[in-house]
Amino acid sequence: MEYTFSDKISSLKPSLIREILKSAGNVIPFSAGNPSVEAFPVKEMADISAYLYSECAGPALQYGITEGYTPLRDKVKARLKTKFGIGKDMDETIIVSGGQQGIELTCKVLCNEGDTVLCEVPSFIGALNAFRSYNVNLKGVPLDDDGINLEALEKAIKENKNVRFLYVIPTFQNPTGITTSAEKRKAVYEICKKYGVFILEDNPYGELRFAGKDVLPIKALDEDGIVIYCGSFSKVFSPGLRVGFVCAPQAIVQKIVVAKQVSDVHTNVFFQMLIDRYIDTCDLDAHIARISNLYKGKCELMLSEMDKHFKGVKYTRPEGGLFLWCTLPDGCDSLDFAAKAKEAGVAVVPGIAFSVENEVCPSMRFNYSMPTEQQIVEGVKILGEVIEKYI
Amino acid sequence: MEYTFSDKISSLKPSLIREILKSAGNVIPFSAGNPSVEAFPVKEMADISAYLYSECAGPALQYGITEGYTPLRDKVKARLKTKFGIGKDMDETIIVSGGQQGIELTCKVLCNEGDTVLCEVPSFIGALNAFRSYNVNLKGVPLDDDGINLEALEKAIKENKNVRFLYVIPTFQNPTGITTSAEKRKAVYEICKKYGVFILEDNPYGELRFAGKDVLPIKALDEDGIVIYCGSFSKVFSPGLRVGFVCAPQAIVQKIVVAKQVSDVHTNVFFQMLIDRYIDTCDLDAHIARISNLYKGKCELMLSEMDKHFKGVKYTRPEGGLFLWCTLPDGCDSLDFAAKAKEAGVAVVPGIAFSVENEVCPSMRFNYSMPTEQQIVEGVKILGEVIEKYI
Repeated sequence: MEYTFSDKISSLKPSLIREILKSAGNVIPFSAGNPSVEAFPVKEMADISAYLYSECAGPALQYGITEGYTPLRDKVKARLKTKFGIGKDMDETIIVSGGQQGIELTCKVLCNEGDTVLCEVPSFIGALNAFRSYNVNLKGVPLDDDGINLEALEKAIKENKNVRFLYVIPTFQNPTGITTSAEKRKAVYEICKKYGVFILEDNPYGELRFAGKDVLPIKALDEDGIVIYCGSFSKVFSPGLRVGFVCAPQAIVQKIVVAKQVSDVHTNVFFQMLIDRYIDTCDLDAHIARISNLYKGKCELMLSEMDKHFKGVKYTRPEGGLFLWCTLPDGCDSLDFAAKAKEAGVAVVPGIAFSVENEVCPSMRFNYSMPTEQQIVEGVKILGEVIEKYI
Repeated sequence: MEYTFSDKISSLKPSLIREILKSAGNVIPFSAGNPSVEAFPVKEMADISAYLYSECAGPALQYGITEGYTPLRDKVKARLKTKFGIGKDMDETIIVSGGQQGIELTCKVLCNEGDTVLCEVPSFIGALNAFRSYNVNLKGVPLDDDGINLEALEKAIKENKNVRFLYVIPTFQNPTGITTSAEKRKAVYEICKKYGVFILEDNPYGELRFAGKDVLPIKALDEDGIVIYCGSFSKVFSPGLRVGFVCAPQAIVQKIVVAKQVSDVHTNVFFQMLIDRYIDTCDLDAHIARISNLYKGKCELMLSEMDKHFKGVKYTRPEGGLFLWCTLPDGCDSLDFAAKAKEAGVAVVPGIAFSVENEVCPSMRFNYSMPTEQQIVEGVKILGEVIEKYI
């Protein structure tokens, strides 16, 4: 039988990263986007789970409300306020099934087919595909070393019709590891405000800082109710649980709630209660400091090995997060390079996987959270040899 | 600030049931759609959780693949085959975040805005709102005592443009408790096949039979690859976990996978592994038999009390599931009646909550899984008094 599908889905492809990971097999994984398994607070989770089964199995296993488990919502609100200066009276916070759901539902509630969504180039493929799945006009804006290019942003807003929102990852960006400067955050906010464009700020890595000085999220500047902020427990706790959150103006959150209700009714209650109790009885900040320190060591090791073995390429030096971005000389195609690297035993993600227009790209993403120290040392040495032959 | 939203979301309202439940307060709950807390296998879940933390915390807490945890998928496939005769070579099965997600994603991958979706009237509001959230042309087809009205179904297919699929709950339907006869299932299949219309078969309650004889799902008849089957662990295990599954032709499942990837990446891994191990090490069928027996007792009690206290109304006698459907005399409005019942101390859901066109409806849904036996006895007595005054 011949099957036909909706316009919005028929052209959507599974992510290239996913395909690379599927076939990665026994190579050294610089290609993942996963936190390290060492970073999961397994012992505490086991203890709290036993407590939940014994003391509150009924509510933990029953249907919950779409907005999320109220004590956890309250804790997330308080934490966003204290740590990031986020959350005005006009704002509301809901729990979602991972940051990805917050991104997808924001697009669903704001955009008609054909409306324009702007994003950094390169950017997180999961978000770009979520936007594509609503048949929007997705346009990329180049990313400079200190954040999105402001002239290109203003031009894109002027030249495209119905620009509804700009999607950005200002802190430890995926895939580049770049952090947008405080000045540029302010400028991005002012440009979007001027043209009535919402900002969807994705901040899954923001708490994993291991160098440099904190920069407040764009949402902290939001006096006008134009920023939708997505956060997640995936990178600071465990991604398998699928628990994230959205803080946005109440009117927008109300629509996200309606959209979430028809999408998955609610986020799984047990793990909402588990995270809530973890925050109550353990020290989340100390746990995050441990993870950041773990990634600091891995990132510094990767960079120092790259300094030793890499010639003729450039790379970012992230102050946190999971990724760095390595750029071959002009004219090189990292898709072709990634195939050679895989043959040699190291999986990396070529830049085309993060592009909007499938353009040839000399850059690629390396992840340092997943590989062991030994894998980092070996992998970088191998890549250095591949680079030497390649360029 | 004035906010505007996408056409598909701006007119979508939170479900009426949800609003009724929110304000239900201290009344006897005949209004819920929840399984009984007594039905959750808490002890076994606690033991298996402890095992997972101790023996496989890494994979249980890390990102998983969108299709679902492979051993659980395989078990679901085998179970569908053995128990229901479902699953041909052309079919594939994926794990989703509750049956609701299977319903929503089916609509997303099959329908453009303006395409027609048909459903039984009355029907499950969560599904109807999921369809509405994609701006489809939703048309209702009346439900007879033995299933959907066939003449009305064929007429609706002929009179509407681009009818993409028919949504049905053939077994212990929500809200009516009606089970579609085997003959009618065959006839529905043949009509849909004739006109090239897919069937979305929702079967969350099908295993909870406590009377009468099993009837095979429509999917068991599917030689032509036109049926998408949604199932769930919510009613036989625990709804808070958000684990369900879809069995459909491979081409459709492939698109659902792509759509799910941008929606929530994957269903939470820990509980997929927990259910998998439960099936391995415990007796799921014996557990389901215990739940069905529990609901049999509650349903029989509710019906016998209704037989004692109700005069002038009709009601269904379900052979399984969670609901029965009570109909006031012609001309009555159950929305008005439900308000009076709530004043008297019992919450029921008026039929308008399950309608397509918001039409006045003399019928209402009673749930017997949630209330205790004492609440059933008291609640029915109170409703009997309200009915006596009302009609």
